[in-house]
Amino acid sequence: MAEKMKAVRKLEPGPGAELVTVDVPAPAEDEVLVKVASTSVCGTDQHIYQWNEWAQRRIKNLPQTLGHELAGEVVEVGSRVTTVHVGDYVSAETHIPCGHCWACKTDKQHICLNLKILGVDRDGCFAEYITVPEVVVWQNDRAIPADQAAAQEPLGNALDTVLAEDVAGKTVLITGCGPLGVLTVLVARASGAATIFATDVSAYRLDLAKHAGADHVFNVKEADPVPKIRELTDGVGVEVLLELSGVQSALDQGLKALAFGGRVSLLGLFDSDVKVDLNDGVIFKNARIYGIVGRRMYTTWYKAKQFLASGTLDISPAITHTFPLEDYATAFELMASGNSGKIVLHP
Amino acid sequence: MAEKMKAVRKLEPGPGAELVTVDVPAPAEDEVLVKVASTSVCGTDQHIYQWNEWAQRRIKNLPQTLGHELAGEVVEVGSRVTTVHVGDYVSAETHIPCGHCWACKTDKQHICLNLKILGVDRDGCFAEYITVPEVVVWQNDRAIPADQAAAQEPLGNALDTVLAEDVAGKTVLITGCGPLGVLTVLVARASGAATIFATDVSAYRLDLAKHAGADHVFNVKEADPVPKIRELTDGVGVEVLLELSGVQSALDQGLKALAFGGRVSLLGLFDSDVKVDLNDGVIFKNARIYGIVGRRMYTTWYKAKQFLASGTLDISPAITHTFPLEDYATAFELMASGNSGKIVLHP
Amino acid sequence: MAEKMKAVRKLEPGPGAELVTVDVPAPAEDEVLVKVASTSVCGTDQHIYQWNEWAQRRIKNLPQTLGHELAGEVVEVGSRVTTVHVGDYVSAETHIPCGHCWACKTDKQHICLNLKILGVDRDGCFAEYITVPEVVVWQNDRAIPADQAAAQEPLGNALDTVLAEDVAGKTVLITGCGPLGVLTVLVARASGAATIFATDVSAYRLDLAKHAGADHVFNVKEADPVPKIRELTDGVGVEVLLELSGVQSALDQGLKALAFGGRVSLLGLFDSDVKVDLNDGVIFKNARIYGIVGRRMYTTWYKAKQFLASGTLDISPAITHTFPLEDYATAFELMASGNSGKIVLHP
Amino acid sequence: MAEKMKAVRKLEPGPGAELVTVDVPAPAEDEVLVKVASTSVCGTDQHIYQWNEWAQRRIKNLPQTLGHELAGEVVEVGSRVTTVHVGDYVSAETHIPCGHCWACKTDKQHICLNLKILGVDRDGCFAEYITVPEVVVWQNDRAIPADQAAAQEPLGNALDTVLAEDVAGKTVLITGCGPLGVLTVLVARASGAATIFATDVSAYRLDLAKHAGADHVFNVKEADPVPKIRELTDGVGVEVLLELSGVQSALDQGLKALAFGGRVSLLGLFDSDVKVDLNDGVIFKNARIYGIVGRRMYTTWYKAKQFLASGTLDISPAITHTFPLEDYATAFELMASGNSGKIVLHP
Repeated sequence: MAEKMKAVRKLEPGPGAELVTVDVPAPAEDEVLVKVASTSVCGTDQHIYQWNEWAQRRIKNLPQTLGHELAGEVVEVGSRVTTVHVGDYVSAETHIPCGHCWACKTDKQHICLNLKILGVDRDGCFAEYITVPEVVVWQNDRAIPADQAAAQEPLGNALDTVLAEDVAGKTVLITGCGPLGVLTVLVARASGAATIFATDVSAYRLDLAKHAGADHVFNVKEADPVPKIRELTDGVGVEVLLELSGVQSALDQGLKALAFGGRVSLLGLFDSDVKVDLNDGVIFKNARIYGIVGRRMYTTWYKAKQFLASGTLDISPAITHTFPLEDYATAFELMASGNSGKIVLHP
Repeated sequence: MAEKMKAVRKLEPGPGAELVTVDVPAPAEDEVLVKVASTSVCGTDQHIYQWNEWAQRRIKNLPQTLGHELAGEVVEVGSRVTTVHVGDYVSAETHIPCGHCWACKTDKQHICLNLKILGVDRDGCFAEYITVPEVVVWQNDRAIPADQAAAQEPLGNALDTVLAEDVAGKTVLITGCGPLGVLTVLVARASGAATIFATDVSAYRLDLAKHAGADHVFNVKEADPVPKIRELTDGVGVEVLLELSGVQSALDQGLKALAFGGRVSLLGLFDSDVKVDLNDGVIFKNARIYGIVGRRMYTTWYKAKQFLASGTLDISPAITHTFPLEDYATAFELMASGNSGKIVLHP
Repeated sequence: MAEKMKAVRKLEPGPGAELVTVDVPAPAEDEVLVKVASTSVCGTDQHIYQWNEWAQRRIKNLPQTLGHELAGEVVEVGSRVTTVHVGDYVSAETHIPCGHCWACKTDKQHICLNLKILGVDRDGCFAEYITVPEVVVWQNDRAIPADQAAAQEPLGNALDTVLAEDVAGKTVLITGCGPLGVLTVLVARASGAATIFATDVSAYRLDLAKHAGADHVFNVKEADPVPKIRELTDGVGVEVLLELSGVQSALDQGLKALAFGGRVSLLGLFDSDVKVDLNDGVIFKNARIYGIVGRRMYTTWYKAKQFLASGTLDISPAITHTFPLEDYATAFELMASGNSGKIVLHP
Repeated sequence: MAEKMKAVRKLEPGPGAELVTVDVPAPAEDEVLVKVASTSVCGTDQHIYQWNEWAQRRIKNLPQTLGHELAGEVVEVGSRVTTVHVGDYVSAETHIPCGHCWACKTDKQHICLNLKILGVDRDGCFAEYITVPEVVVWQNDRAIPADQAAAQEPLGNALDTVLAEDVAGKTVLITGCGPLGVLTVLVARASGAATIFATDVSAYRLDLAKHAGADHVFNVKEADPVPKIRELTDGVGVEVLLELSGVQSALDQGLKALAFGGRVSLLGLFDSDVKVDLNDGVIFKNARIYGIVGRRMYTTWYKAKQFLASGTLDISPAITHTFPLEDYATAFELMASGNSGKIVLHP
């Protein structure tokens, strides 16, 4: 194994990141070292790269390597690791749980009270190698190509968003067609959604959503989609709203389009507090709302594996671009333009 | 049967109502005539009495008799009525469903798309007699006294609020201790809530909540209850939030006090849009929210009947005052003062 | 409208049925008259035709027309019918609920305590015309062809069987690949099942199941499928068992193949009591079992409509044969041979 | 700490056990040593004591100390233990999960595929000291007395049995009123069951159930309870069946008494395969059945703690006898007689 490696690191506070050469890290006794085959870019990476308000507040330990969605091969294991072996083909859950808090003890490790996050609280995977705690190593099915295996992490978000309740035979509205939105369209389609409506402000993203299987797409810059959605649902509205945009107006439209007795999943994060008409939007509608964060550990990962390895779900339409790791700046620019789905980097 | 009867009616737009003598109504072919033994006062009645903005917009057919929570005896049945008989001891569901819309056909009659409401869209029960459509007649168990039978309707709201998910062995926060709040405390206690926290701005109501079984009550005019609730729940927060106040600050406090993975029921109606921190309050918490309106027809009514008739649930602590119908104005004044639980009128 | 019509009727106790000419029935005031465009054959029809033990006990009113799965056009409506009109394109729910018993009042009309069944308790639809109570008339979407619209009724069984809990991304075993089994395979596939295993004793039916989307089919006459299913599920077993055979050995194999924490739906009826190893098959496995009968009224029908009208679910692979009504005897023979999926008759 | 201790051990295959003096065990690096304050006797202990067929097949490592329900104080911790400290007041979950199998990784540790059981696969707690793996140590609330804290383990079974779905306002039948049955009555009562029916063959146990809050108890040696239960439920039957007897006839009666759409929890283990009328008992009833084993780790333990520490649930009526450890033989005899609830031993 090499002693030095390339890594995309933020060296000091401020926008941007540098491609630098650093020592290959050594795994601690409860960690493994993974040679990264593929890593995909998440909005969180972009926030850190752009050094937005959240990142300034949240990121404590510079310099630090970016990235947290990955697939690769285990090349070394710590002395107390028992369930992972050299040669294993793995990905990683990003949320590192403590294992002993109230949340961890009640099937909620993904919202552990002492959560640490890969690429946020410790070095990430935009590098040739990364150390990963054994507790978050995920054994991949070899039938899943590395680019898709890396994207299992965000796919998990989409799975929990769509499947908070079942969608089979139901009408579904997805607000926000970024990379996660497109994964959400794919999951909803594969899980039996009868009719999928999707909204966004980007023509590129709406095309992507349409290609992924959305039946009706609406550019909300052009017109309010609610009347048309109501018309296409016999006046009933959509039975399921999946909110991924984090935008006030999308939430408003979604709740207006929601059927009585409907279900909402909220995954998109909002820039600030939102104003909600709880009476007409939630209470009189007898609606149910689920806040979604992370992925169930590891129920959701098994679902992702089984979906992908069986070929029942094909997420390749969501992965639009692949770059060598060196072109990370191009990747971030493209992502910022809105003209991409999931972007993959190859170290 | 008498030909004339007393009724509390709003004769024209504006605050107040009159006690007048009118003809006893004749039931239509699909209706029954009920001699009212007991009727309880709801916030909706008060809105109509006070003629607030909502009432001005909503009430179409004056003059009209107020009231919708009742128990009494059937004294006449329409020609096509088959399931109700003279002498039956009945109450009435307030929500009159059309029976054939999408909502009615999918187990959601209580949010029928063509809903009519007793005492809102047609004459109510603050009178000696009321006609009730057969479809909303509820056969009471004779073990339940009339005052409690009348209160089954709001009890149904409390049941759906508490039991959207189970509360057994869990920590529960109830924000808002008006008549519905006190019923909610009683239901939560009877359904196994381990620890009940309750908040309000009225010392009277907090006393009532305490008497009904709340373990810890907080007057939010005096201090922010969140730190104490967190302390009393080992830092975890409450597993269940039941919001009955319809007040922005109560919702804020409730969401802050809510545990990760917690459940929220929203029953209180808000005066206007509210501002919500969806990120920290709902999404990162992986919370679930249920909008509650009306009562499941008739799953919830069976639950109410079985709870009351078996003596497992005693709602008498929630019924604080009883007046003759003639004293309706006193009742409304008392209710407006906040110094009452459920108020019952006897025609 | 014609005054006489063809009808397949059982005239007296004993095997078989006759094609006879009878008066077109007149709808009662709460009924409609439907001109049957398509009707499909169910196992229940076959039991009545063959006059098995169940039929001898259950069928009271001979002579009677067979059949209950249909699609057609309304040609006359009774005087009190308000929601159906001449010209409507309809199907019918087979279970006629009373509307006022405890089950009907608690969202369980499909298991009404006073249930009457089309083609069992009153004349069925193997005829040119049938009268149907308004309460069970279902408005079809015109995008759905009549043969598929007729099959919505058994499709409803399959939907409730598959979707008692969601199947997205899960492993599923279907025991029994008759017409309902094939519909079940189609629904499971459309609803996101990752891997579908299916068993039967008929090579014809297993081919049909394979064609419908089953990944692995097993002829249980040849070998015990359990070891192979365990192997193909990494030793875990299937997360979902859908039992449609009504056969002791299939249930045994299904429970043995079931994963810990797995879910079972039972739709197939058994000839007699079965022996079950509740300890190892259910209790130690922490399994959940759902008995399935009929279809949720009308939640499941909406699901069926939305699935079919959107093209998300194509049930044509389950419909293998179409005959003119006159060839009903051929149809029953074919069905008895096991070499058919759903058989449709055209009056 | 003492170097020697008393322990009730089975020294060799065959009925009975011996009170012997052995070395106090030393905790391994991931274990703690607990000084046992209270331990309660379970049916499993009795099976091992009596050396029945199951025990002969299951118990591998003699000599071995019996017992697995306990409360006590931590007196020593292994070198890698981080979450437990000397002086902690603890109990133990009996099911020792591996932590890395499919079941453990999907929120089902209690049915781990590699499960080890305290007192079955390793030395138990009928002794002055026991070593317990850190992963199953439960921190007790000091408000809970040791005898009740020891009984939290079987209480967990009762909680999962009762609360597989909620029971608030519902009718409940409990078949089997042994120690677990009485705990089940107490939990059902505390969780809002409206009416509780209970059956057994022992007058002593039925008295205990009545004292614990059952409304109607039936000695099935005297008469078939089903007609009376149907009568007392207006012909509907019970909405919830909790089967704890493991007896064929109790299951038969339970399913006959079950309402349409009812729910069943199965906790009692059966001596052999049972015969079930799946058609009438489960399928036509649209029933739901839950197999219950162990306790959710640790959702159920938190529920138990909160129920007991808050005083909302008082399980003292279920604990009928207390003996010094030396009188273990008397305890087993008493238990075998059926004339006891939960029996506690004090080392």
